[in-house]
Amino acid sequence: MSPALVVGVDVGGTNIEAGLVRPDHQVLGRRKAATPAGGPDAVLDTIEMLVGTLGGDPVAVGVGVPGVVHGGEVLTVPNLPGWIRPIDLATELTKRLDLPVALGNDANVGLLGEWVAGSAAGAENVLGVWLGTGVGGGLILGGQPFTGVHGAAGEIGHVLIRADGALCHCGRRGCVEAYAGRRAMEHTVGVMVGAGCVTSLHEIRDRYGKARLTSKVWARALAQDDPLAVEVFAAAVEAIGIGVANAVVLTDVDTVVVGGGLAEKLGQGLADRIATAAQPWLLARHARLRFIAAALGDDSGVVGAAALARRSGSC
Amino acid sequence: MSPALVVGVDVGGTNIEAGLVRPDHQVLGRRKAATPAGGPDAVLDTIEMLVGTLGGDPVAVGVGVPGVVHGGEVLTVPNLPGWIRPIDLATELTKRLDLPVALGNDANVGLLGEWVAGSAAGAENVLGVWLGTGVGGGLILGGQPFTGVHGAAGEIGHVLIRADGALCHCGRRGCVEAYAGRRAMEHTVGVMVGAGCVTSLHEIRDRYGKARLTSKVWARALAQDDPLAVEVFAAAVEAIGIGVANAVVLTDVDTVVVGGGLAEKLGQGLADRIATAAQPWLLARHARLRFIAAALGDDSGVVGAAALARRSGSC
Repeated sequence: MSPALVVGVDVGGTNIEAGLVRPDHQVLGRRKAATPAGGPDAVLDTIEMLVGTLGGDPVAVGVGVPGVVHGGEVLTVPNLPGWIRPIDLATELTKRLDLPVALGNDANVGLLGEWVAGSAAGAENVLGVWLGTGVGGGLILGGQPFTGVHGAAGEIGHVLIRADGALCHCGRRGCVEAYAGRRAMEHTVGVMVGAGCVTSLHEIRDRYGKARLTSKVWARALAQDDPLAVEVFAAAVEAIGIGVANAVVLTDVDTVVVGGGLAEKLGQGLADRIATAAQPWLLARHARLRFIAAALGDDSGVVGAAALARRSGSC
Repeated sequence: MSPALVVGVDVGGTNIEAGLVRPDHQVLGRRKAATPAGGPDAVLDTIEMLVGTLGGDPVAVGVGVPGVVHGGEVLTVPNLPGWIRPIDLATELTKRLDLPVALGNDANVGLLGEWVAGSAAGAENVLGVWLGTGVGGGLILGGQPFTGVHGAAGEIGHVLIRADGALCHCGRRGCVEAYAGRRAMEHTVGVMVGAGCVTSLHEIRDRYGKARLTSKVWARALAQDDPLAVEVFAAAVEAIGIGVANAVVLTDVDTVVVGGGLAEKLGQGLADRIATAAQPWLLARHARLRFIAAALGDDSGVVGAAALARRSGSC
């Protein structure tokens, strides 16, 4: 008898990735499609299509979405157009696929992937920091994923570092994400260029045929020491470092995993830079705090979503 | 057969309180002594004396101390003189008393008391904020006390609210405690008076025969609308509100318990003020966050320390 396969789906701001995952967390096959702009129904269509083309007779589906998820409902999805009210995505998908569906926040799910099969394997107390369009996060506490009352625990992106600081997408001021998300960094670059600064970021973006300053664009600009890219990125790393230190003071974890698109491109070097930025803000007792880059790359979300489905059901 | 009694001991910066506690968390008898300045040995002597005079044939002892506690060791005690290196307080006390001893951080233990028998009873996800000389804290997460890797989780006093803000006793800048602890408030008052401000705080202090601006002194000055007391205290409440909001974003708890000396004097009115201060810094999903004052007063530490001993052993 073949082992039960589970599909893990990672819904991102740019792409939706789906993979067929074995019980040992190996990914057997992958499918990918652009995230449609048409709101929840279009996203459901895409997930249904991807699961169908993967085949493999899966017994369950896990899905990570870039929003707050609680009890099978997607409460808010700030980074996808058309998600204006809570959606019962799990019930909808179960109807379409005739399979049990588990739902989680994308960063929580990414951290879960790294925890079951990646760089955080075996760790008991972990903060995940997921760097993409926004800054997501997740927590493993006392050897278990911890998601809080509304499924929103670990939101490192909205940890405050400066009361009355920079305006954040969430409407508050001084959040980590106001300095460190790709959206915030792109906004800063736009303002600086408008004020006369010169940068190669937009030229690289156009050369790569991208609409936005993607992680790949940032990695390239940083590799060639573009001064504006270096400056804006340094401010982002500083904000992440302070926010992580703040989170570590509160949760007393000993492991920080850095994941998401930027971590995939920049690897352990980025984790090391965040460690250096966090250092002045940590208490003495946190001297042995480890900062490690996610190890599964693009797969952490897919592997984590599948693991979530396995943990939620009996498969 | 009489039910097994446990002694709970609450080591504070000013007094050490001990109580004989029944399994239903009722306190049968209390003893109190000034906290000696002679370091750990003198504190051990005082605890031994208090436990002896309480009598009652207890089966275990629980102790809350104002420092970081891990694995029976007191790692740091920033607010007591002479505690300059880690002390194995549990082993020492067990030797002296011939009883099992459990050790915890004072704010963690206070929150535990409120959780087993006070205002947080039955809550699954709680942040405790303990306002005294410093600002302590604790966490109940997923229906269990959570203390982290080094026993230091929930340190709301060292959650940062303004990178590069006011200098804190811990050596970092911008912690909640740099604005909100009694030590920090007293320092601010001293500077303001030196700069020409007028206040009744010192007169009240002298009238009460106190050496410092205690919670009772603050409560009196606030009750008579002393302008400087009102101003410094408002800044403290603002800092606590921002810090609590920051902690709630990260942990997604739905209950905040406000305890410690200042809460004992100011009650639910203080919890309500902190709620108001936190509001602008919370995300929409935290609308139903409850702020409640500790209900056990002076007893929360004693009851919590006893509960810690019961949870640690078989009694």
